[in-house]
Amino acid sequence: MSYLSDKASRLEPYVAGIQPGEGGWIKLNTNENPYPPSPKVISALNSADITRLRLYPDGDSKALCRAIAGRHGINERCVFCGNGSDEVIALAFQAFFSGKENVMAPSVSYAFYPVWGEMFDVGINRVPLTEGFQIDPGSFKGANGVVIANPNAPTGIALSLEEVESIAKNNPASVVIVDEAYLDFSKEAESASAIKLIGEYDNILVVRTFSKSHSLAGMRIGYAAGDSGLIGGMFRMKNAFNSYPLDALAQVAATAAIKDVDYWNETRSKIISVRNKTTEGLREAGLQVLESQANFLFVGFENASELYEYLLSKKVLVRYWNNPELGKFFRVSIGTDEEMEAFLRCVNQFLKEKQTKQQ
Amino acid sequence: MSYLSDKASRLEPYVAGIQPGEGGWIKLNTNENPYPPSPKVISALNSADITRLRLYPDGDSKALCRAIAGRHGINERCVFCGNGSDEVIALAFQAFFSGKENVMAPSVSYAFYPVWGEMFDVGINRVPLTEGFQIDPGSFKGANGVVIANPNAPTGIALSLEEVESIAKNNPASVVIVDEAYLDFSKEAESASAIKLIGEYDNILVVRTFSKSHSLAGMRIGYAAGDSGLIGGMFRMKNAFNSYPLDALAQVAATAAIKDVDYWNETRSKIISVRNKTTEGLREAGLQVLESQANFLFVGFENASELYEYLLSKKVLVRYWNNPELGKFFRVSIGTDEEMEAFLRCVNQFLKEKQTKQQ
Repeated sequence: MSYLSDKASRLEPYVAGIQPGEGGWIKLNTNENPYPPSPKVISALNSADITRLRLYPDGDSKALCRAIAGRHGINERCVFCGNGSDEVIALAFQAFFSGKENVMAPSVSYAFYPVWGEMFDVGINRVPLTEGFQIDPGSFKGANGVVIANPNAPTGIALSLEEVESIAKNNPASVVIVDEAYLDFSKEAESASAIKLIGEYDNILVVRTFSKSHSLAGMRIGYAAGDSGLIGGMFRMKNAFNSYPLDALAQVAATAAIKDVDYWNETRSKIISVRNKTTEGLREAGLQVLESQANFLFVGFENASELYEYLLSKKVLVRYWNNPELGKFFRVSIGTDEEMEAFLRCVNQFLKEKQTKQQ
Repeated sequence: MSYLSDKASRLEPYVAGIQPGEGGWIKLNTNENPYPPSPKVISALNSADITRLRLYPDGDSKALCRAIAGRHGINERCVFCGNGSDEVIALAFQAFFSGKENVMAPSVSYAFYPVWGEMFDVGINRVPLTEGFQIDPGSFKGANGVVIANPNAPTGIALSLEEVESIAKNNPASVVIVDEAYLDFSKEAESASAIKLIGEYDNILVVRTFSKSHSLAGMRIGYAAGDSGLIGGMFRMKNAFNSYPLDALAQVAATAAIKDVDYWNETRSKIISVRNKTTEGLREAGLQVLESQANFLFVGFENASELYEYLLSKKVLVRYWNNPELGKFFRVSIGTDEEMEAFLRCVNQFLKEKQTKQQ
């Protein structure tokens, strides 16, 4: 007998990328940062008072909200922290979209959006991308809510700040969630963020994460920035779900990370430069690579599935979705220079072997 | 204009106890453990490899599930871990109760249950306690789901294992959630846990936490134990909400904590003994104290509100709900021997001053 509720039975859970238990892999499948967290994070964690872990953490993560607000030059009442940006977006769906129809999301985007839609009674309207895999801002009109990733995943293609603004302007009665998980890897990260718009648009909720550009995927910290009205709604949902979403050490780590702007800039710059080099290398090898502003590349290739298996056999792990929509494409995260050179060598080796066989 | 969804507007969030920012308090309001985490937790955290935090944690917390299963002598497929037992119960509501009516909960119990009910479309049927504030197992029949806390909160009164079993037996088509957040403070903790029943009853889901008896409130770790069918449902919900609920350090801390049985036994025994002493002291002072099997006491007193304010003025923080149902009662967590002596001195001082005034 199944005890599952009807809703739970209907759900199709999100499938995250593999986390291999053993070492020895070149792991380029879940967009992790190849560099360790800032040395300041390490020293903050090392000097944290473990005996205090007997006490509940600050459920509102006030010190962290303050540090994030300071970094972006906004009021601390405009910041909400959650257990990873996934939790933040899930709570935002409940706060602003629950029970609504025609909440627009790009047809190709983060695959968790439709799952939360199903989970929280949100009718998702999947808006097609252009032929070039771009989000067309003009298609997002008359929605009861919008969620976009900028840069989009898994394409890596970014909208300009003006394009994001036009979506907020065209949907003044609805909340527009802008998921900027990867924006720090765009060259003009600071001027491109929709956080610049929240003073003017009370309907924009920007969601960000410490998992990627702050090398803290292991600590599960995400945040939302928006008008204090929206942020109040986020706290309301949190307090109806889980009063203390961030543990004390996660708060310590994230607070140290957001303050170390130099390290953030240094590591993201390295990733941008390796990304550009990898793009060139793949294009030289004859593969299609979309113009990425993220820490991954979306790579088109007729034999994507075969290449994926080949890479796997060489212990190089990339992300491949075996579905018709993305059939020809795989996604590769940007690792260190050495890792990407090894990846490129494997790709070229595969092409060479294939050519030899065909002759 | 409010952007809140109808559901979000309707919700009345849970109000957690105060977490004062500054020191100097005797903090007896949120049932924290007065002792630090096990020295083995401290050394495990100190030797954790921080550089690996750049990677996602194990989203299924497999090593931790294995350690918990080993501790309870059950299969590891019968364990699910979440971001505090609050998240675990919230996911269980969605997995098993969503959209159902007549899900039974005691009328006086953990105040978060009705909030999750509202949030996840669950019709909660509040079953009255007996006059002695006890849960009457015989009243829980014909439910589409049951959630009880054992020991109950905030009363501290426990059901026997046979009574819990009778509830599972009387509701064979429904999931019975047994929230054992405080059970480790009952004298026969190990034989009293409904985990003993999960081999025989595939409808019992036992929920537990590291916040109380393992002194890890600051790290947010809870778990569920039950038949692998129910646990499968829990993983399903997790993967439709947040793939990685526990960060890497929380998993390290909890794994070390569950293995240190001696420290667990030593600290819980101290708390049990201080609890019994405090009960006597309060009764001698003329206050009503329910028989508690938890790390707190539920204390009845005509002037509860006045006493609460008096304690507050002495920087002793207890939990008082200003509502008609619990009007005459407050809850005091069991701290160290010294803290409870200070608390008792304040109570007696208050009574003395009151008597003087009345003369």
